Amino acid sequence: MFPPERILMGPGPSDVHPAVLRAQSQPLLGHLDPDFTPVLEQIASGLRTVFRTGNPVTFAVSATGMAGMEAALVNLVEPGDDVVVGVNGVFGGRMAEVARRAGATVHTVEADWGRIIDPAAFIDAVERHRPRVAGLVHAETSTGVHQPVAEIGTAVADTDTLLVLDTVTSLAGVDVRVDDWGVDVAYSGTQKCLSVPPGLAPITFSERAVQRVRERTTPVQSWYLDLTLLLGYLDGRGGRTYHHTAPISSLYGLATGLDLVLEEGLEARLARHATLGALLHEGLEALGLELLAEPGHRLPQLTTVALPDDVDEAALRARLLTEHGIEVGAGLGTFAGRAWRIGLMGHACSERNVRLLLAALERLLDQAPAPTATT
Amino acid sequence: MFPPERILMGPGPSDVHPAVLRAQSQPLLGHLDPDFTPVLEQIASGLRTVFRTGNPVTFAVSATGMAGMEAALVNLVEPGDDVVVGVNGVFGGRMAEVARRAGATVHTVEADWGRIIDPAAFIDAVERHRPRVAGLVHAETSTGVHQPVAEIGTAVADTDTLLVLDTVTSLAGVDVRVDDWGVDVAYSGTQKCLSVPPGLAPITFSERAVQRVRERTTPVQSWYLDLTLLLGYLDGRGGRTYHHTAPISSLYGLATGLDLVLEEGLEARLARHATLGALLHEGLEALGLELLAEPGHRLPQLTTVALPDDVDEAALRARLLTEHGIEVGAGLGTFAGRAWRIGLMGHACSERNVRLLLAALERLLDQAPAPTATT
Repeated sequence: MFPPERILMGPGPSDVHPAVLRAQSQPLLGHLDPDFTPVLEQIASGLRTVFRTGNPVTFAVSATGMAGMEAALVNLVEPGDDVVVGVNGVFGGRMAEVARRAGATVHTVEADWGRIIDPAAFIDAVERHRPRVAGLVHAETSTGVHQPVAEIGTAVADTDTLLVLDTVTSLAGVDVRVDDWGVDVAYSGTQKCLSVPPGLAPITFSERAVQRVRERTTPVQSWYLDLTLLLGYLDGRGGRTYHHTAPISSLYGLATGLDLVLEEGLEARLARHATLGALLHEGLEALGLELLAEPGHRLPQLTTVALPDDVDEAALRARLLTEHGIEVGAGLGTFAGRAWRIGLMGHACSERNVRLLLAALERLLDQAPAPTATT
Repeated sequence: MFPPERILMGPGPSDVHPAVLRAQSQPLLGHLDPDFTPVLEQIASGLRTVFRTGNPVTFAVSATGMAGMEAALVNLVEPGDDVVVGVNGVFGGRMAEVARRAGATVHTVEADWGRIIDPAAFIDAVERHRPRVAGLVHAETSTGVHQPVAEIGTAVADTDTLLVLDTVTSLAGVDVRVDDWGVDVAYSGTQKCLSVPPGLAPITFSERAVQRVRERTTPVQSWYLDLTLLLGYLDGRGGRTYHHTAPISSLYGLATGLDLVLEEGLEARLARHATLGALLHEGLEALGLELLAEPGHRLPQLTTVALPDDVDEAALRARLLTEHGIEVGAGLGTFAGRAWRIGLMGHACSERNVRLLLAALERLLDQAPAPTATT
């Protein structure tokens, strides 16, 4: 098994630091071994730093980022609850769908792809529907939009509504302030700006979110994601109770990835993403390409860019992969077939990679054949 | 991060071959990269061999074994469905609970801990309740009981009931014959007899199980585990559709672990477990210890053994770990506080380990202090 070398500049997974890969090759400890406890504590502590929270209940769900979304919603939502969800891309749409499957009556607040959810409209919907839960995507990976959260968080914090924030692509790439913004549950994935292989979903629950779960009158529909059961393992004070077997190797990787974030410093890491994201945006516009997220709300770590109309984006993307070893992502939904999603995440967010991509793209566009009609 | 060296002889995770650990340290490919497809195909093919099935829908769920159980049940069960579950230990009890949370009316067929579910009683319950789904644990990890399945499978195959088999601890340790037995869904974990780190749940669906999922009138309550959505990624023929980001490193590990199984040969691997399990059982009885699973139905790879009444099992187990570096598992449920669970799984199933454990146990029992009253 000798996979070809890639530079991963798509929507995730991103490139992983060799130290994280090495950590995943360590021999296993048992998941109940007392010597494994420091690894779990290190992860909880590191996640609190990147989420900027003091929440005791902060851990990694044993599945990928989408299971983080599901864990947030199935724990908080009971059948018949009203839920408000902001939808301006694929992941807001998924949040609405996951909430519906948990039995919620979902009220969406929508915006065009590439635009933010208007905070006033979202706050208004929360005031009108007085939902049990309101959900929002901080970094919409399908559009590259950076959603402002602070104003919404402040407004919602004074109500009985719990605020759920999808930080899958934002965590450790742009500022995430769980406590300052009054976010009740934030979840993420490891394979984006943390630059750890996919497989875990960092998550944090505020005290009032934990209380809400404890006061449920119906069981959480997912046994695997039931927070009250998970706490028996996570809270080591009374001895760890077996729930499921924790994914040891992935947790070694995450602990090491978080160490790398702390070693760089969270502020420095966010600044690196901001600087290089701007460099990429300038470079793409200098090539005459259009950025699809609205100005002022563009993520540095995930850029949606329209390809020229006369270019077959799939063929060009395949050539970027095979000839240049660079992976970027296809457009999704509204942007499918006409845009790319370019990631600059974590370890892959380097000036070298920005220059490489721009140079490769310039060459490919010069040579790009017109799209051929598909029969 | 330098974890102490352990010999993992508990109920899982088991020791992992260095080649599997190395595979987990490979740089990542994207989960939609065409060069990643052979890895997924290799896993599907290897899993078909160990499950002894031709089922096209055979893959690894992106979460641990318990999520395999949940994936089986939430896909097959619709609210109000009758489900029959055999309960003679922790995992049968969990299956009943997961089915209830999926909206099922559950009818249990029970047996004492340490005894098999009587096939005639199980078949009788299926005939009486005509359930949509009947679930059974093949290797009950809490008791060490090896459940006979063939007779039940034959009886159920002629009905509209789908048979779900938990093979978390049995797969690649004792014979699992999905097609011969008429099993509709079997799921497993990687961290037992496959000797791959925890994090994935191998699963296989028969054609009629897939059909059942497609004909549902209600959505699968879990978006993350919804088979119809997963098939868009798994079935590469129409191009892979993004659902969630596949856990690349864990899949590299599983592909390599399956290669090791095929290299040894499945029959040889099962014979190794049988021989060394018998050696362990003889050795434990020679030390005067009582085995808790009924004779004739003992798993070689998971042995429950009662400690002498005057021994503090937790203290002895802690000494086995710290002084001898050997991990065994505590008893669960009925067996908590008085028994151990000794694993002989996959890479950890060696004559060296059996001898080491027996020698260590003999020394520790000679020196074991009486349990002290806890105040």
